[in-house]
Amino acid sequence: MRILGVDPGLATIGIGLIEAQSSQVFRALDWLTITTEPGLSLPERLSELHDDLTGFLQQAQADLAVVEKIYFSVNKKTALDVAQARGVILQTIQESGIRLLEPTPPELKLCITGDGHADKRQMQDMLVHVLNLKEIPRPDDAADALALAVFGAVQGKKIQLIA
Amino acid sequence: MRILGVDPGLATIGIGLIEAQSSQVFRALDWLTITTEPGLSLPERLSELHDDLTGFLQQAQADLAVVEKIYFSVNKKTALDVAQARGVILQTIQESGIRLLEPTPPELKLCITGDGHADKRQMQDMLVHVLNLKEIPRPDDAADALALAVFGAVQGKKIQLIA
Repeated sequence: MRILGVDPGLATIGIGLIEAQSSQVFRALDWLTITTEPGLSLPERLSELHDDLTGFLQQAQADLAVVEKIYFSVNKKTALDVAQARGVILQTIQESGIRLLEPTPPELKLCITGDGHADKRQMQDMLVHVLNLKEIPRPDDAADALALAVFGAVQGKKIQLIA
Repeated sequence: MRILGVDPGLATIGIGLIEAQSSQVFRALDWLTITTEPGLSLPERLSELHDDLTGFLQQAQADLAVVEKIYFSVNKKTALDVAQARGVILQTIQESGIRLLEPTPPELKLCITGDGHADKRQMQDMLVHVLNLKEIPRPDDAADALALAVFGAVQGKKIQLIA
């Protein structure tokens, strides 16, 4: 089972792809960021995001995608930009026919560390452990995306058993 | 010149199409709403919106599209839903190669009525006058979309002259 994690954003979108070899053995296949050019208009950036993500989805052959829900930040402008980009991300994945999960940040933290209030360091340490990596994946957006993919490996399994 | 106005939303998206026969004579060609099923998941609704809007764009043959910018409402959840839908609307129009304008609500009001703080009634009365309609277009979302299209007819002209 291959699971794609996506950390939504407008300027930088984190992407992480893992393979669940069993219910407890996960392997990181790829992590990267998709970026959009700040000099372009919003419609142009959203279109670039759609095209780049579509290209990645075609290669990735994922069975499940996980896109984090937005929590309101202090900066409303940023939240609106992220929300507009997130809409395009969801539509692009839906269009490709991949099943989708949408955890909140606390749900993600709880799943990875057992603590819904875990800080970034706790998350990254646990990610290194779970994926058996030599070091913390960079940049942070890509590490967040890998954590989302691990959430999918754990939760997607449960959903399959229920279904 | 054919101009499409889009009033963004997740449950109900207003659509208005007008023709500018000269720089001052505008004719309403069509107005309607696209709706998405509340029982569906967010990705499913966004995908439905993308497909319905793509279908409308293929028929409409618009030269210019106008999509209102989001102003923060009291209800943050609603603003985020609208923003996610708006991202899909912008990407869908960009994908179709149509030029886009994005006025704020005050810019729209100022253009239609000469008053950036105009209320709904003033906007609708002026819309009936400008488009030479027999009555106020229904529902409100479609009337808002027609007003956006009129904005495009007025402002798009200026932009063409400058370009």
